[in-house]
Amino acid sequence: MSILIDGLQYNNWSEQVFREMRAGGVDAVHVTIVYHEDFDETIENICAWNRRFAEFSDLIMHAKTAEDVLTAKAAGKTAIIYGFQNCSPVEDNIDLVQVLHDLGIRFMQLTYNNQSLLATGCYESSDSGLTRMGKQVVQEMNRVGMVVDMSHSAERSTLEAIEYSSRPIAITHANPHNWYPALRNKSDTVLKALAESGGILGFSMYPHHLAGKSNCTLESFCQMIADTADLMGINHIGLGSDLCQNQPDSVVEWMRNGTWTKDRDFGEGSASNAGFPMQPNWFKDNRDFHFIRDGLASVGMNQIEIDQVMGDNWLRFFRDSFEPVN
Amino acid sequence: MSILIDGLQYNNWSEQVFREMRAGGVDAVHVTIVYHEDFDETIENICAWNRRFAEFSDLIMHAKTAEDVLTAKAAGKTAIIYGFQNCSPVEDNIDLVQVLHDLGIRFMQLTYNNQSLLATGCYESSDSGLTRMGKQVVQEMNRVGMVVDMSHSAERSTLEAIEYSSRPIAITHANPHNWYPALRNKSDTVLKALAESGGILGFSMYPHHLAGKSNCTLESFCQMIADTADLMGINHIGLGSDLCQNQPDSVVEWMRNGTWTKDRDFGEGSASNAGFPMQPNWFKDNRDFHFIRDGLASVGMNQIEIDQVMGDNWLRFFRDSFEPVN
Repeated sequence: MSILIDGLQYNNWSEQVFREMRAGGVDAVHVTIVYHEDFDETIENICAWNRRFAEFSDLIMHAKTAEDVLTAKAAGKTAIIYGFQNCSPVEDNIDLVQVLHDLGIRFMQLTYNNQSLLATGCYESSDSGLTRMGKQVVQEMNRVGMVVDMSHSAERSTLEAIEYSSRPIAITHANPHNWYPALRNKSDTVLKALAESGGILGFSMYPHHLAGKSNCTLESFCQMIADTADLMGINHIGLGSDLCQNQPDSVVEWMRNGTWTKDRDFGEGSASNAGFPMQPNWFKDNRDFHFIRDGLASVGMNQIEIDQVMGDNWLRFFRDSFEPVN
Repeated sequence: MSILIDGLQYNNWSEQVFREMRAGGVDAVHVTIVYHEDFDETIENICAWNRRFAEFSDLIMHAKTAEDVLTAKAAGKTAIIYGFQNCSPVEDNIDLVQVLHDLGIRFMQLTYNNQSLLATGCYESSDSGLTRMGKQVVQEMNRVGMVVDMSHSAERSTLEAIEYSSRPIAITHANPHNWYPALRNKSDTVLKALAESGGILGFSMYPHHLAGKSNCTLESFCQMIADTADLMGINHIGLGSDLCQNQPDSVVEWMRNGTWTKDRDFGEGSASNAGFPMQPNWFKDNRDFHFIRDGLASVGMNQIEIDQVMGDNWLRFFRDSFEPVN
């Protein structure tokens, strides 16, 4: 089938954004609802989403299963799937994993950029892999049906998560390091291990992850996807745009600094370029996915392959990942 | 002067324990008020201590400075100094360090046994040293006057904390690994680096850290102290009994497992020996410090050296450590 799924967005949510999702034919989006929040703050964010589902019930609905995504599509709505970019909502309490799954959380990064209680983030100078609690929590996520996401994790931690997790994991938003050597992009070693274990990579359109950054061409991006299909296999790739639409620069500053430092950290930016980067001209918002579809055809992918990248692979992954183990 | 200071206790606090402190002539004790608690739970523990200070105002008082310790001694009371065995009360918010110092916290371990947001604990299989947040928090602790305690930390993290901290650090409760190779005991490398940086080691009387465990002899313990004085210098050692008096075994199970695991962790114990170990017969409670004083004389230490070990070194360390940097 032809379904359009984006593996990660963190927009300043509004009617405008939801209407653009519908205009762009976006069937489902994994939305980030946490960067640094603890459990109580996460509940506040869930409450805010519940108010949005009520207010914009003609445009969006909360999805906890692959079946819910199909229900949304049939009703002409965009399915919203919750995820965390950090393990902060679990605090130091493994029992919160099940509680959070009950509330609909389907993806959780074991780390944002820094060391967490579970694993090491990609900005640390040294990576000690999965911690004692990390191994426990991965087991528990496997049990309840919450996907391990290593998008912002360091290499050894990522490889250990792939190895240790009994269910396939995801890297929801990143690109190959061999195409553009950003700290956040992933080595061939990671990408191959991810694919061999049945996992999935979502390609990021966030400019700091793109060759040429904001000036990256659609052709370069689509050729990279075709090349990665050769490396990983066509079943193990999708989109994960990392779209951060309409966010003020204070948000990216908060993403980077949270409350962990008294210095100012610039993450993938710099003192002279501290804000959100400009999107490439072929992906400004949810109405632009058709450019990618066309671009993939231009680099020689066939219709079935394009459908897989645009959403079919994510749908299969959701079906295999979101339910508890029997 | 002759002052008796214990560098760590975590008893089931009661009038009995406080009266034994007075009977034993104990002038000051660094008490653990946190193992796994977050900020809000820490406040509850502080409130419980405030109630104790009111109820037992003839026996104990809260001390925030070395001067307070002398005030308590002059009044015939035992000074109580707060410390944490984990960084959990700081959560992910560096600004809480100053708030907690204002509330009287004077020691904080960067880790308990596991990986924390700041550093690696001694039970992890891999040690990545101080994290990005760890370096920030050590700087902040240095600024406000909160002592970095690495008693439960792994070797590389400990060495990095000694190196990175601009003020001397403490290992409040551990023994030399060369005397008894417990995982928690410290290598000569760590002990020498600690001493060279002006830091201090508190000798533990917790049986899992003793050669011969519960059957350790007073003579062996005191000879180990004399030998460590030779290694580190007489200025850098004191007592840190780790006395956990009157605690039910459920407490040691909580110390080890907190809420981080669904399996059962036995820490320094084992499935067949899961509870608190029996104290050696020469140190059962706060009335027994005189045995150690006599034991140190028996292994050839002079009166000045004995006074240093029994409390003078801790008093000097408190004086140098508890106030903010100008």
